[in-house]
Amino acid sequence: MMDQNKRSDILGSLLTVGDEILLGDILNTNAHHIAGVLRAHGFRLQRVVVVEDAEEAIALELEQLTAQSRFVIVTGGLGPTDDDRTKWAVTRAFALPMAVDEADLQSLMARVKDRGGEWSDRLGRLAQLPQGATRLAPGRPMAGFSLEHHGVPCYFLPGVPHEMETLLREVVLPDLMHRFPQRPACCQRVLRLYGLMETEINDRLSGFDAVAYGVKVGYLPQTAENWVTLLASATDAEEAQRRLNAAEKELVLLLGEDHVIGRDDESLEKVVGTLLRQRAWKLAVAESCTGGLLAARLTAISGASDYFDRGFVTYSNQAKSQLLGVPEELLQRYGAVSRPVCEAMVQGVLERSKVQAALAVTGIAGPTGGSTQKPVGTVFIGGAVGTRTVVEQHHFQGNRRLVQEQSVQHALALLWRMLRS
Amino acid sequence: MMDQNKRSDILGSLLTVGDEILLGDILNTNAHHIAGVLRAHGFRLQRVVVVEDAEEAIALELEQLTAQSRFVIVTGGLGPTDDDRTKWAVTRAFALPMAVDEADLQSLMARVKDRGGEWSDRLGRLAQLPQGATRLAPGRPMAGFSLEHHGVPCYFLPGVPHEMETLLREVVLPDLMHRFPQRPACCQRVLRLYGLMETEINDRLSGFDAVAYGVKVGYLPQTAENWVTLLASATDAEEAQRRLNAAEKELVLLLGEDHVIGRDDESLEKVVGTLLRQRAWKLAVAESCTGGLLAARLTAISGASDYFDRGFVTYSNQAKSQLLGVPEELLQRYGAVSRPVCEAMVQGVLERSKVQAALAVTGIAGPTGGSTQKPVGTVFIGGAVGTRTVVEQHHFQGNRRLVQEQSVQHALALLWRMLRS
Repeated sequence: MMDQNKRSDILGSLLTVGDEILLGDILNTNAHHIAGVLRAHGFRLQRVVVVEDAEEAIALELEQLTAQSRFVIVTGGLGPTDDDRTKWAVTRAFALPMAVDEADLQSLMARVKDRGGEWSDRLGRLAQLPQGATRLAPGRPMAGFSLEHHGVPCYFLPGVPHEMETLLREVVLPDLMHRFPQRPACCQRVLRLYGLMETEINDRLSGFDAVAYGVKVGYLPQTAENWVTLLASATDAEEAQRRLNAAEKELVLLLGEDHVIGRDDESLEKVVGTLLRQRAWKLAVAESCTGGLLAARLTAISGASDYFDRGFVTYSNQAKSQLLGVPEELLQRYGAVSRPVCEAMVQGVLERSKVQAALAVTGIAGPTGGSTQKPVGTVFIGGAVGTRTVVEQHHFQGNRRLVQEQSVQHALALLWRMLRS
Repeated sequence: MMDQNKRSDILGSLLTVGDEILLGDILNTNAHHIAGVLRAHGFRLQRVVVVEDAEEAIALELEQLTAQSRFVIVTGGLGPTDDDRTKWAVTRAFALPMAVDEADLQSLMARVKDRGGEWSDRLGRLAQLPQGATRLAPGRPMAGFSLEHHGVPCYFLPGVPHEMETLLREVVLPDLMHRFPQRPACCQRVLRLYGLMETEINDRLSGFDAVAYGVKVGYLPQTAENWVTLLASATDAEEAQRRLNAAEKELVLLLGEDHVIGRDDESLEKVVGTLLRQRAWKLAVAESCTGGLLAARLTAISGASDYFDRGFVTYSNQAKSQLLGVPEELLQRYGAVSRPVCEAMVQGVLERSKVQAALAVTGIAGPTGGSTQKPVGTVFIGGAVGTRTVVEQHHFQGNRRLVQEQSVQHALALLWRMLRS
């Protein structure tokens, strides 16, 4: 949907230099990071371009992008080797001579000497910059410089993600904020939803007038979870926050509070952890087809030891009997992927671990192991909280990894529902 | 490094249409997929451009890219809603009228009727295409069409990844291969390496003459693993394969066979699984700080039930004592993150599970829980194969997730080394 606030954003462009992205070796995660950081501060990318490490291609794009944008960010091609061409492309595009900063050269030579390294002309190239350029991190071992061209600030960052992120946060963003004080203030919110399909969300939100609220509404499907995103912008931060709050309140009403798992970074495992911690309860889990993924999701949260006690990855039938006390008769009669076995697993966890909450998952993740009666994607999920036990049967679509991820997500959602009711 | 084979590749461009990428909501995984598939078939992207869902911006890029490229692929903006502008941009860029395919319209109406849906003008728009365009999947519920402009084939694909992937594989790639029979034949190889740092790899490969072998060598760091990639191209497939094999043989000699985990998709968990299966051995694992991630990596492989028996996620000290028989005295005296406890864990797994191989991991993943003596990132990894037991101490850098992933990778590598020796 179109957003009337867009027009007041400060529009910039990003140029990514790198053969490895064009050849499909790596994902352009830098572009994703930069886009997100800019958006959160009232700037917006109108164009992202990826070109190879070739002087002509980089120079051509630099000319075009500086003519179209209020600012330009470039990543990659700043290393000392022959195929790092970015700064040469700058001298070409902006008709500038290459210059050497003496202070820079001295500090570089000192650093090499300190480390016992040998000086070479190749290293000397690192101290070369197009005339008029300013180093972004003088005296620190990171490439990166900025330069103004016809009033458009251009920032050249290394392609190494953590260096790029550091310079973006410490130097580029403050400089942009200083240059463009009139940009809109922005607030963002993610509403994480469970139990509503995309079409249901569309239906429930069809009457919502985003323009009247001064927000932009987005929609992002996740694995067994849907996200509705809200972006409010206004001339000042207070007004943006007010718009966001008003819009969020209305959206939650339309979608139904019961479907809202959490906000922003409140993942299911985090929300479930908070509910357990509030009750001073412990959780233990038993997994077959998810093979440890459920425990791994829970323990990805720092501080999970407050409520997560243990996990059993009972992959073989023998493990199910020995560790959880699942009767062999049940396994033989119904098979490992069955409602009775799932129930016995979750009961076994509860009894043997002295916890207040338990989860169990058994299913066929595929691609092999399916049958007509129990096709690949058949998964039983059991939850036990106090004296209540629930076992659900699911039929998931997708490959092995997707079946495992959906199983984990629905197991966490089952516990979430049981803890709330 | 420059590659003389590049020049003979068929060069194309990719245009991604989508606000959600420019706003940092999602990663451009489509671009990554398309680049990789094209490369494997002798095509190469020279430019990737991302623009917003706006007719003018899309039209402008279409004009530029068709003038520069042998072929153009466009993804996104093909849906039925008002903000899907791609086909309107095509009519504008190529000065074509919009046309309705009658057969298409009928099949669409029949599909809607079958599902009991209501017909609307909005749905009718789905049957509109720029004059001269050909639907990529006639009669199937997927948007996507192709069109030739001044002899340059242009393919318009939906942004939904699985639809895009299907059409790329089934329609676009065969069409490109038919149109450009003279392209070079390509073969690729990934060598997965363990135990060599980037600088060591550089040193060992410094004498390797890629140009003489007719290959391109790339380098991709992974978590606790490094990949060296080889791309051979030649006028025919046999010659490309010959070049690849010769180059690979030389590279393995230079790098050292001992450091090669596997090739292409042979991940550590897969290679370890194969070694266990060959011996008809079973494996069980115990995890503390990795919280199930090690078991999850092992069971991500289909058929892991042949050799993976069970996993213990002993997060609490009580779980370590009860499930693995770790003496409480050891836990109190040395702490849960210590060499004696790790050794007791791996012994406990071995004794209680009747398996031939066992792994145990205990450490501090952070961000909390560290101390001066045992800082965050301190991890003990134990391996037991038959009567041999090895415990290693590591100090990993990075955030919680990185410490967990490095721990898993090094645990698998320990087992790999023990199984081979």
